[in-house]
Amino acid sequence: MFQLQSKHPASCSELVGKVDRFGGVTVRDFPPDISEDSFNIVLKASLASWRREGKIAVWLHIPISLSRLAAVAATLGFTFHHARQDQAVLCLWMGEGESRLPGFATHQVGVAGAVVDESSGKVLVVQDKNKTKNAWKFPGGLSEPGENIGATAVREVFEETGVRTEFRSLLSIRQQHNHPGAFGMSDMYLICRLSPLTYDIDFCTQECLRCEWLELTELARTGDTTPITSRLAKLLLHGLRHGFHHIDLAMEELPAVYSGLFYQLYHRRLPA
Amino acid sequence: MFQLQSKHPASCSELVGKVDRFGGVTVRDFPPDISEDSFNIVLKASLASWRREGKIAVWLHIPISLSRLAAVAATLGFTFHHARQDQAVLCLWMGEGESRLPGFATHQVGVAGAVVDESSGKVLVVQDKNKTKNAWKFPGGLSEPGENIGATAVREVFEETGVRTEFRSLLSIRQQHNHPGAFGMSDMYLICRLSPLTYDIDFCTQECLRCEWLELTELARTGDTTPITSRLAKLLLHGLRHGFHHIDLAMEELPAVYSGLFYQLYHRRLPA
Repeated sequence: MFQLQSKHPASCSELVGKVDRFGGVTVRDFPPDISEDSFNIVLKASLASWRREGKIAVWLHIPISLSRLAAVAATLGFTFHHARQDQAVLCLWMGEGESRLPGFATHQVGVAGAVVDESSGKVLVVQDKNKTKNAWKFPGGLSEPGENIGATAVREVFEETGVRTEFRSLLSIRQQHNHPGAFGMSDMYLICRLSPLTYDIDFCTQECLRCEWLELTELARTGDTTPITSRLAKLLLHGLRHGFHHIDLAMEELPAVYSGLFYQLYHRRLPA
Repeated sequence: MFQLQSKHPASCSELVGKVDRFGGVTVRDFPPDISEDSFNIVLKASLASWRREGKIAVWLHIPISLSRLAAVAATLGFTFHHARQDQAVLCLWMGEGESRLPGFATHQVGVAGAVVDESSGKVLVVQDKNKTKNAWKFPGGLSEPGENIGATAVREVFEETGVRTEFRSLLSIRQQHNHPGAFGMSDMYLICRLSPLTYDIDFCTQECLRCEWLELTELARTGDTTPITSRLAKLLLHGLRHGFHHIDLAMEELPAVYSGLFYQLYHRRLPA
C-alpha cells in the first residue's frame, strides 16, 4: 500500500495508490468534488513521484460519475484500458520502450450445438430470421459471462428450438477477426455435439424462420447451408457411421495450479 | 440517418443519431463546448423522441476528451458498454424486458506451443521466472489483437526460447472464468503442436528461468509440471508412438458467407 500523503483524498496533494508486483500503481479513490484544474495538478505531482520511484505503469479506476477526471488524465497521456457498467479503467505506461501492459479481452465466444439423434440419423437445424440467405445451420449464440462452452450450447439450443439436450463433445473451433458483430473485435465460435433428451420442436419465432430435424445425409449434401455447417455435417456423418470417438474432443475438469479453481480442458480422449 | 434537428451540433436541441437495423440509435457527434446542464436537457429530449419512435437502444460513442458527458448520460441510465484507447461507448436499453444488447468481448486468448522433435522424442519446455512453483510448461502467451492461433504459438515460442517453428495442429483448449490475469474476465487457452525449424535455444531471461529440450517420456512422468502440461505430454507421447493424426485437429481456411473474409476452422481431419 502506497500512502505518501493525506488519507483524505478531498484534501490531498498526491493520489493514494496500491503498488502491484509488476511495479504498477492502481488508484481507486478520487476526491469526489475535485475540480478538473486541481485534479490536473494532483495527478501531475503523483506521476512525478511515481516516476522517481521507478514505477512502470499507472492504472486509474474512475467511476462513471467522475468521468470528467478521465478527460484530464487523457491530457497527461492516459488512455482507456477498458470500461464496464459504471467504471472505466485508464492506464499509462511509464516503463522503457513499448507498453508491455496486458490488453483487455479480445474475443467474444459463441457456441453452436449440433444435436444428433443417433437412432434416426437426423440433426436439429434452424434458419435465422434476420439473415439475407436462408441457410440451414445449427442453433447457437453468444456465451454469457462466466458460462462454460457446453452450457452455452445447451442453453442456446433450448432457447431457439425448445429441445432439451446434453453435452457430449467439442467438435470444432472457428476464429474470425475484425468481426462486425463483435464491435470490431475477434470471434471464437465453437461447435459442440449434443444428444437430444426431448424431440418436440417449439422454436423461437423472434430468432428463427424455420426449425427441423433434418437427415444428416441431406445436410451434408445440400447447398442451402453455410460452408461450416456443411463441413460439420460431413464430419458428423462420419461419426455416425464409424463412431463419434473419431471426431470428438472429450471434456474434463482439472484443478488450476495457482488459484485452486477448476477449469475445463478439451482434447482427444486417450486410450485407457 | 436520423436528423431531426439542426446540422450544427453546437446549437442543437436534440442529438443526431444513426439508426441500425435492430432499431438502435448510435450517436457519434457531440457539441464539443456543451455544458453538462445543457447536455442533460438535450439528451433527455432526444431520448423522449427516440422512445416515441419505438427505438429500443441508444449507443453513445464519447471521445475521452468529452468524458464529462458520460457522467451526465449515467444519470439518465446509461452504462459503459466498452472503452478503448480514446473512446468510450455507452449504451441504454429502452426495449421491453431485460436488455438484449450484445455484450463486449469476454475472453482473452492465450496460446502455448508444444514443439515436438520427432527424431529425438524431445519437446521444448520452459520454467516461468515469476511463478512460485518451478514447473515445466510449454512456452506461450497472449494473442495480440487480430492474430491467428497458430501465429501466436510460433511468435511466443520464438520470443521465449529463440527456436523457430511451424504450426502443425491444434491439440487442446482450456476455458477458465474469473481469471485474475484477465481483469476478472474469462481465459481461453489453446495448445498447438509445432514442428521445430531450428534447435538452438536462446531463451528470454526476463520471462524464463530455464529452457530445455526434454524427453516426452520424462515430461509425461515428472511431478515438476502443471496438470495440463502432464496431460498434454501423455497425449503427445501417444501421438509420437501411434501417429499424430490420432490427437490432431487440422486447420483449414474457409470463406465467411456474409463478409467474404476468410476464417480459420479447426476440426478432426476427415478421411479422403
